[in-house]
Amino acid sequence: MAKVKKQPRPKAETPKGFRDYFGAEVTEREQMLRVIGEVYHRYGFDPLETSAVETVEALGKFLPDVDRPNAGVFAWQEEEGDWLALRYDMTAPLARVAAQFRNDLPSPYRRFTMGPVWRNEKPGPGRFRQFYQCDADTVGSASMAADAEICAMLADTLEAVGIPRGDYIVRVNNRKVLNGVMEVAGLAGADKEAERGIVLRAIDKLDRLGEDGVRALLGAGREDASGDFTKGAGLADVQADIVMGFMAAKRDTGPATIARLSALVAGSQIGAQGVQELETISEILAAQGYGPDRIEIDPSVVRGLGYYTGPVYEAELTFEITDEKGRPRQFGSVAGGGRYDDLVKRFTGQDVPATGISIGVDRLLAALRATGRIGGKASGPVIVTVMDRERMGDYQAMAAALRQAGIRAEVYLGNPKNFGNQLKYADKRESPVAVIQGSDEAARGVVQIKDLVLGAELAESVSHEEWKSQPAQREVPVSDLVTEIRAILDRQG
Amino acid sequence: MAKVKKQPRPKAETPKGFRDYFGAEVTEREQMLRVIGEVYHRYGFDPLETSAVETVEALGKFLPDVDRPNAGVFAWQEEEGDWLALRYDMTAPLARVAAQFRNDLPSPYRRFTMGPVWRNEKPGPGRFRQFYQCDADTVGSASMAADAEICAMLADTLEAVGIPRGDYIVRVNNRKVLNGVMEVAGLAGADKEAERGIVLRAIDKLDRLGEDGVRALLGAGREDASGDFTKGAGLADVQADIVMGFMAAKRDTGPATIARLSALVAGSQIGAQGVQELETISEILAAQGYGPDRIEIDPSVVRGLGYYTGPVYEAELTFEITDEKGRPRQFGSVAGGGRYDDLVKRFTGQDVPATGISIGVDRLLAALRATGRIGGKASGPVIVTVMDRERMGDYQAMAAALRQAGIRAEVYLGNPKNFGNQLKYADKRESPVAVIQGSDEAARGVVQIKDLVLGAELAESVSHEEWKSQPAQREVPVSDLVTEIRAILDRQG
Repeated sequence: MAKVKKQPRPKAETPKGFRDYFGAEVTEREQMLRVIGEVYHRYGFDPLETSAVETVEALGKFLPDVDRPNAGVFAWQEEEGDWLALRYDMTAPLARVAAQFRNDLPSPYRRFTMGPVWRNEKPGPGRFRQFYQCDADTVGSASMAADAEICAMLADTLEAVGIPRGDYIVRVNNRKVLNGVMEVAGLAGADKEAERGIVLRAIDKLDRLGEDGVRALLGAGREDASGDFTKGAGLADVQADIVMGFMAAKRDTGPATIARLSALVAGSQIGAQGVQELETISEILAAQGYGPDRIEIDPSVVRGLGYYTGPVYEAELTFEITDEKGRPRQFGSVAGGGRYDDLVKRFTGQDVPATGISIGVDRLLAALRATGRIGGKASGPVIVTVMDRERMGDYQAMAAALRQAGIRAEVYLGNPKNFGNQLKYADKRESPVAVIQGSDEAARGVVQIKDLVLGAELAESVSHEEWKSQPAQREVPVSDLVTEIRAILDRQG
Repeated sequence: MAKVKKQPRPKAETPKGFRDYFGAEVTEREQMLRVIGEVYHRYGFDPLETSAVETVEALGKFLPDVDRPNAGVFAWQEEEGDWLALRYDMTAPLARVAAQFRNDLPSPYRRFTMGPVWRNEKPGPGRFRQFYQCDADTVGSASMAADAEICAMLADTLEAVGIPRGDYIVRVNNRKVLNGVMEVAGLAGADKEAERGIVLRAIDKLDRLGEDGVRALLGAGREDASGDFTKGAGLADVQADIVMGFMAAKRDTGPATIARLSALVAGSQIGAQGVQELETISEILAAQGYGPDRIEIDPSVVRGLGYYTGPVYEAELTFEITDEKGRPRQFGSVAGGGRYDDLVKRFTGQDVPATGISIGVDRLLAALRATGRIGGKASGPVIVTVMDRERMGDYQAMAAALRQAGIRAEVYLGNPKNFGNQLKYADKRESPVAVIQGSDEAARGVVQIKDLVLGAELAESVSHEEWKSQPAQREVPVSDLVTEIRAILDRQG
């Protein structure tokens, strides 16, 4: 007989650029998102969960920050010919929903959403092709009160998840002020569109290139480390000074900053409007008690100025952490957003004002972990070990009694033959307590309780003699099982 | 100048077969899954969230219940040539993870997972191409204690989400008993594989075809309503009687059912093993107090018998609901599962026993809604209306004060000119209370509070005269705003 040709076994691998989340990685994120959702809900925002899949037509075929059409998304063609794709952010689906359900949704429509998005990018270290976004947007309000509200909500949110006041700052800037600055610098008019584009892109790179780099891009241009040359906007020094002055316009107090900006855009109508918007936001926030210790006007916030049309906001964590190289540095940005007044225009042709914020879920989680606010305590289950295979019902009954008292507990379900394996398993599960009952103990109506946390501590610190006296293990009546274990868990804290 | 050709506007449409979830649809599902997760966690199960995307190779290219390879999944090819796909269930990713991380995961590995899965099927009424699954599985334990635990956990879960004891039953059967029955009926041996396959498929259709339909398929075959003929297993009547007897083997008590099954499979080793497994599960559950009011042996549970290799379970809701046609009927199945002992074999070549359950998230949600256990109460925000646009800060401060007291509140952010629109908005938001303060009230330090729920009731029941006296609206000092509104909310319940 001919041998059946063996098919090669499939590789068990997470696809490149994707990852799996285990245990606390899942629950800690969920817990954080739940707290954020509670704050958003209290502010009148309603949850929305759109389908993960959109038509490529509705998505617009490209990411806002990717030039190539069709690039950046995972897309496939239906049998009937339609192209579908996974959403790459939460804003494109919101635009689709706001257009599709415009007759049913309240207006203004405040919504929040949290979930994965997908980017078809080259995977790299720490760069994933699926990650969480958490967005809140107000659609259909042109009022600066909507922007102020988002900033206040962001501050409340950070405090709710565990960032103390003083450890964060929400900074606000305004695209219209920059437009005014460009007007004053002589960059108004249709013929200067290319220059304005270069200025916007240059400013957006302040964090990365520093002042000198931006100034070079405002002028003749800039050669990067690899020798590549980027053409500049060709501004004269006096023009570049005005633009750079905008980013350095922050003063000690909000009113002083606003006065400085007002002076910078003197003569520009759009500039004056931008300054007025910042002033309105400040006033509304001040009336609610949000001072510059939480939210401040800061013209050096440049991220997104090229994308947004009015106010932009950024939330930064101001405490220091130690980076991979052991150097102290500020944690930095965890959320950003702003106003974009053409959300549904692609679909309906109408201008619909919108403003919103997106929280960097992974970065905020990393911040909470870095400061020890989450991830401290193991929450492994109590392990009921199995000494007599035939008495499985008794062991399950013990676990059931613990669970009914709200204590996480499980019976060891591997092969019980080797008791050492059971304790190794308990160790791997980060179990706080092991329960042991052989037939001898069962006959006497008692059970052994082993405090595994204390046991590990003692193993490190005490002598062999002391260790042998087993202070981490006690015999108690079966009827005291729950009480005794609760006492140990309380002690372990 | 040539006219620029206008691009047609994209359609704002959820892709066919997909849907969006709004407001309470999102929060009610989340709330239910959270409660389920808490029970699972207490049982020692750990959360796992795999990537939504898998390699087609790892998925195995086809759904278990779809014959055509490559059908049933959304798949696309990477630039480098690999095919990727959206997961179609939670079991295939678990198999991949169990193989990939076998050296790091505890063994046995108990895990639960909840999230969307995708099926590339023809969309139909009520059939969606993205839906939630919620699974719990124990990988690496051959012990019947693992199966008993899953059944107990399922019972606890149903009670935790709000299904009272007596309104559900977890039913348990065993594939090995059926194998034994087939052996006794003379269907053992390699040459009878085709017949056994037909018997398995026929039994799986008991719910749909009824006893007569199944009996026809066990015999010569069956012609359906459309005239299509399905060839039967060709069993003699005496053989078919044995198989049908298996499904009717349920007796009044567990021991009586087990005795009946034992008699049915007399002489078959595999059959005896299956009966023994059912007996062990019963004993373990009895030791924990789970009686037949919650979990029972029932050989008429046939769904999945073709797929699973040992015990199978199904959770059914036993209360009556009224169907679309106004007829009373039992709600039916909300969860199912069983033991499958070849989970990771495709990847590693090793047999790894596993057993698990999947809850039908949408069906269970529908059950909770049908019985009024969720979805009763609107949770719209208190609306602070805007009478003077310039006093936005004051209105925001009122909303902030309410929120700080834990009350959901928002300021109206549309154009405030038309006050009627503000009240219409409040209505659309299902707002319980509106707050109104004009300049006159502001000067006197008071605010109008309008109980919108009471207002709506009065509008329906009272005369115009009574209505005009506006008992649903009261003037209170600004300092009493929070207290007064809380009192109204408490009254509204």
